[in-house]
Amino acid sequence: MAGDDVVRNKQVILKNYVTGGLPKESDMEVRESSILLKLPEGTRDAILLKNLYLSCDPYMRNRMKKAETSSYVDSFQTGSPIIGYGVAKVLDSTHPDFKNGDLVWGITGWEEYSLIIAPDRLFKIQHTDVPLSYYTGLLGMAGMTAYAGFYEVCSPKKGEYVYISAASGAVGQLVGQFAKLLGCYVVGSAGSKEKVELLKNKFGFDAAFNYKEEPDLDAALKRYFPDGIDIYFENVGGKMLDAVLLNMRIHGRIAACGMISQYNNEQPEAVHNLMHIVAKRVRMEGFLVGDFYHLYPKFLEMVIPCIKEGKITYVEDIAEGLESAPAALIGLFTGRNVGKQLVVLSHD
Amino acid sequence: MAGDDVVRNKQVILKNYVTGGLPKESDMEVRESSILLKLPEGTRDAILLKNLYLSCDPYMRNRMKKAETSSYVDSFQTGSPIIGYGVAKVLDSTHPDFKNGDLVWGITGWEEYSLIIAPDRLFKIQHTDVPLSYYTGLLGMAGMTAYAGFYEVCSPKKGEYVYISAASGAVGQLVGQFAKLLGCYVVGSAGSKEKVELLKNKFGFDAAFNYKEEPDLDAALKRYFPDGIDIYFENVGGKMLDAVLLNMRIHGRIAACGMISQYNNEQPEAVHNLMHIVAKRVRMEGFLVGDFYHLYPKFLEMVIPCIKEGKITYVEDIAEGLESAPAALIGLFTGRNVGKQLVVLSHD
Repeated sequence: MAGDDVVRNKQVILKNYVTGGLPKESDMEVRESSILLKLPEGTRDAILLKNLYLSCDPYMRNRMKKAETSSYVDSFQTGSPIIGYGVAKVLDSTHPDFKNGDLVWGITGWEEYSLIIAPDRLFKIQHTDVPLSYYTGLLGMAGMTAYAGFYEVCSPKKGEYVYISAASGAVGQLVGQFAKLLGCYVVGSAGSKEKVELLKNKFGFDAAFNYKEEPDLDAALKRYFPDGIDIYFENVGGKMLDAVLLNMRIHGRIAACGMISQYNNEQPEAVHNLMHIVAKRVRMEGFLVGDFYHLYPKFLEMVIPCIKEGKITYVEDIAEGLESAPAALIGLFTGRNVGKQLVVLSHD
Repeated sequence: MAGDDVVRNKQVILKNYVTGGLPKESDMEVRESSILLKLPEGTRDAILLKNLYLSCDPYMRNRMKKAETSSYVDSFQTGSPIIGYGVAKVLDSTHPDFKNGDLVWGITGWEEYSLIIAPDRLFKIQHTDVPLSYYTGLLGMAGMTAYAGFYEVCSPKKGEYVYISAASGAVGQLVGQFAKLLGCYVVGSAGSKEKVELLKNKFGFDAAFNYKEEPDLDAALKRYFPDGIDIYFENVGGKMLDAVLLNMRIHGRIAACGMISQYNNEQPEAVHNLMHIVAKRVRMEGFLVGDFYHLYPKFLEMVIPCIKEGKITYVEDIAEGLESAPAALIGLFTGRNVGKQLVVLSHD
């Protein structure tokens, strides 16, 4: 092995588990290590990746906790790089499905280079005539989440009343656009004037409101949905869910995608209005995108033409450099990001 | 009209709406009025019923409140007889579907005789070789609720782990027996030693426990379901639902039939663990039997042979006489009844 094949490899390390409250930048650390830019002899089914983009996703908060039965994901390892979705280029491969120069998206490390043995969730990128960064969101996990959640879980019908919380986020902005394409009436909520404007002017929602300016969420929903809500795409939980339950229509559906308002709470917030699930015969269904990746080719078939024809648009919030990754991740929980939050490591 | 056709008609009147807490006997009043035992000339689409059995059902608590948006039923009229399911004999009819002497079950009044115009939910009894009282429960609304809730909402599979709260009640005892017939592992909870014995020895549940003796419901469920719960048939709500959410298996289902623990609360009890719906991809679905009556013939086809072959049994708690009806109804909310609570008015 030639010594000049060893390069610096900056990594974002989880220093300690985060028990309650918002994660802090000091819970993570950017550390320099080094890596040989070639797979060691005899390493089978492995690939060496140069990471180009990293995705910041709310579910990652749950991996920063020490594992408990309630979590749907394993904990990160403290002292090791954070793991998440990203876009990367294959530098070396002994895996039959990947070869040098391939572009891939899927699970990688928060570091400049990652050596991955037996990759579990990594997809070869076929369409490169769209922005590569889209594979951290629109064409990646968030896009599949919106697609599966809306079409497979919500059972949507033309003309139905659709409400989306965290609507300008990586998933919400797409759900709204899918619902508009189907001919639904779509209202979204978000946490700033700027985001509300995006929803109305960029994503074509019928209406949008800033939930932080609504002292009475029930009253706000009644204003936007005087006849009630058929479909609620749930990204938030807590008080918002409680207000929505008061406004569901008969045989309404709630797709529970996540509950970001709850991730940093020591104790989960109370929900009081579940009796409305009986009264209105509501179906509330939790789902995880991991159960739906078999639909990925079908999803691309639908969404790539929509992107090219300008029927689907996507707003990204791009942080520059690995050093900015911890703050970008934390910003999700205070709503600092506008659109899909990602980090660019290399424009290569 | 001959004067001797006018007879006494005792009625249970709702005196006032019950806002919070348990209803009291003094919220109702047994009053004597009189009725002509013949339909008035020219009354079309009407029937005159002699009521034989009345059914006491938890949902009636919601009709004793003043109407609000949260309720799935209309309020009773104060000053008028309570309305509910019952079994009756047709004394006179100008309705094309019913004739004198027919036995019927469905919505009638809490009184000795009822004059019903354009009956909305009244079924002619075809099978009379089973106890007539069964049409207040097993072969009536409760039976259809158990059937539709279990087979249509729970999507049950052989070998699955099924948990039923309020398991010895009108609905629960049937759900458990249906689940056993399908080859599920079935555990029920109830509020007394006597009921727990019934579940195990009479209804063939695999196990049962007294929830009042369990200071930690989560721990109790973990004891009975070390591998978790596939199906929860929800009759209770509140703390029980919260504990169940901690113990659901991946892709588990919760059929929300009612939440009896909540009906007498001024404020509904908090549920904290909804995030588990996402984590475990749980489907929670509210349902009302009214959406499923088209399946009634199919239900009878399945259940009548089961009754005759002794594969389905049913425990009734029978109160004698209209005067006992208010106490029988109230007893549902303190768990005084053992099995299906009904009131017999006439053995005719």
